[in-house]
Amino acid sequence: MSLFVGVDIGGMSIKAGVVDDSGRILYKDKCITDASKHYSAIVKDTFDLVEKVVKDAGYTMNDISGIGIGCPGTVNREKGIVNFAGNLNFVKVPFVDEMKKHTDKPTFIANDANCAALGETKFGSGKNFEDTILVTLGTGVGSGIIINNQIFDGRNGEGAEAGHICIQMNGEKCTCGRRGCWEAYASATALYRQTEEALKKYPDSTMHKYLKDDGEVSGRTPFLAYLEGDKGGVEVVNNYVKYISIGIITLVNIFRPQAVMIGGGVSNEGEYFIKMIEENVANKCFGGKHNSTPCVVKATLGNDAGIVGAATLAM
Amino acid sequence: MSLFVGVDIGGMSIKAGVVDDSGRILYKDKCITDASKHYSAIVKDTFDLVEKVVKDAGYTMNDISGIGIGCPGTVNREKGIVNFAGNLNFVKVPFVDEMKKHTDKPTFIANDANCAALGETKFGSGKNFEDTILVTLGTGVGSGIIINNQIFDGRNGEGAEAGHICIQMNGEKCTCGRRGCWEAYASATALYRQTEEALKKYPDSTMHKYLKDDGEVSGRTPFLAYLEGDKGGVEVVNNYVKYISIGIITLVNIFRPQAVMIGGGVSNEGEYFIKMIEENVANKCFGGKHNSTPCVVKATLGNDAGIVGAATLAM
Repeated sequence: MSLFVGVDIGGMSIKAGVVDDSGRILYKDKCITDASKHYSAIVKDTFDLVEKVVKDAGYTMNDISGIGIGCPGTVNREKGIVNFAGNLNFVKVPFVDEMKKHTDKPTFIANDANCAALGETKFGSGKNFEDTILVTLGTGVGSGIIINNQIFDGRNGEGAEAGHICIQMNGEKCTCGRRGCWEAYASATALYRQTEEALKKYPDSTMHKYLKDDGEVSGRTPFLAYLEGDKGGVEVVNNYVKYISIGIITLVNIFRPQAVMIGGGVSNEGEYFIKMIEENVANKCFGGKHNSTPCVVKATLGNDAGIVGAATLAM
Repeated sequence: MSLFVGVDIGGMSIKAGVVDDSGRILYKDKCITDASKHYSAIVKDTFDLVEKVVKDAGYTMNDISGIGIGCPGTVNREKGIVNFAGNLNFVKVPFVDEMKKHTDKPTFIANDANCAALGETKFGSGKNFEDTILVTLGTGVGSGIIINNQIFDGRNGEGAEAGHICIQMNGEKCTCGRRGCWEAYASATALYRQTEEALKKYPDSTMHKYLKDDGEVSGRTPFLAYLEGDKGGVEVVNNYVKYISIGIITLVNIFRPQAVMIGGGVSNEGEYFIKMIEENVANKCFGGKHNSTPCVVKATLGNDAGIVGAATLAM
């Protein structure tokens, strides 16, 4: 059995875990991310956390075969450089070279969403496939593209930004500054907005029953109403499925993966929701019955996908 | 010097040329495509044309190192099979195996748009680059994606159908049966439609001066008016540039090529038109100044790209 450390760097916390070669996390821990620090201090924090989880898991660094790191932003995997990561104030940070000052273990880095897709494909819902796409519906729409069991992230790692496919010219505002991006329609954030709009449009909707105690919309609000056949709920859910599917169809027309894996809190809604997306995609991909259509499945690694996927980089 | 034959199969005609290893066409000829025939007869016609151009060029088949074929539709390059090509009535046609009944020369086949992109990258406007995208604005929007000097066409050759990126939900009808595809906005066909609409909207537009003798719109109609500062012409051209750019931006966000090559009759409009697209793309790609932006150039091989690109398959 070989052991690896997977690190998932986020704007709020750095998580690390000892992962075995079957993708199992043996032990994990985290520390806060202090994005105000110079990058060399953040790399040092990362290395200290790696050492800590290895020790606390009952091993020594000699037991570790390699370290994989998932980081937000644009990452040049070949050079081990983070080109740009806004929430970490990283611009052209030579992360792997900096890690080498602390350890001689083979160290790899990739974009966090791409790491998650790799982990999910190797050890999660995509393990029977080699060509997959992971779509994570959260604050934004994250995506990771796997071709032949390897990350595809475009030239110099600057591609694979599927959340910013334009699906509606002059459409909803996106956090990237443009209008009409897939993310502005298919993220969980967008679902909240769509639900709030429907609450106003349908004052008698049963969606009003399914707000949180503080009166706020939850990710389940429209789905609970949908399942009752409520008009407002049906409209929100059907449109949301359509929005998710439109971006997936573009990706299928370009990559033709075997499976599309759906992650993020919304993906827990249930098999019926995943099947709605699958049907929508199958009906509208280019070439119809003459081409293959992907299965759509729920991602299964959940929050661990980041650590497992990062560790997979080193395997 | 090695010699190759490149074949460009279309719904109307089959074209073939003897091509040297610098991408020069030494001799070419064509015959009509009879799509009512069984595929084996079409393959025989193709082989007969190959033999004819070789002989008429003053060579024998012994001088030929390989044959490359570009065919419309979905082509599985690895297996040498045309999965589906509507205008040829091809469904799962084992084209390369059928060619082997006539010749023992190494024979390769790929989608025609992908061949054109390969030829254009190896010998045309993309020759200084290894990661490129060719966008051909014609009856539809053709696209070919080249990564590391090789065709990228998705799993089993069923991908890279960029013309069917949805850029407008519930938008204009597309020939594929869906609505809002890039092709329905950025093709030359779409430009004619947009020009006709603007002629009605602006009865005083100078565009009316620039119709063909039969009163029909030409590809130049809106551009000639644009260059005079005519309101209708400016509106049509600015929108058309935006439509072209939106699909390119999606492709750049996914692939991050070094160059985007624009082909088709409209691309002859002039350097100013190409520069308008380049600026639009540079301003709106994800990551802004932190990521690289591609240059946009006019494709230079023109109608020969099909034959040259097909021959390149065999090099």
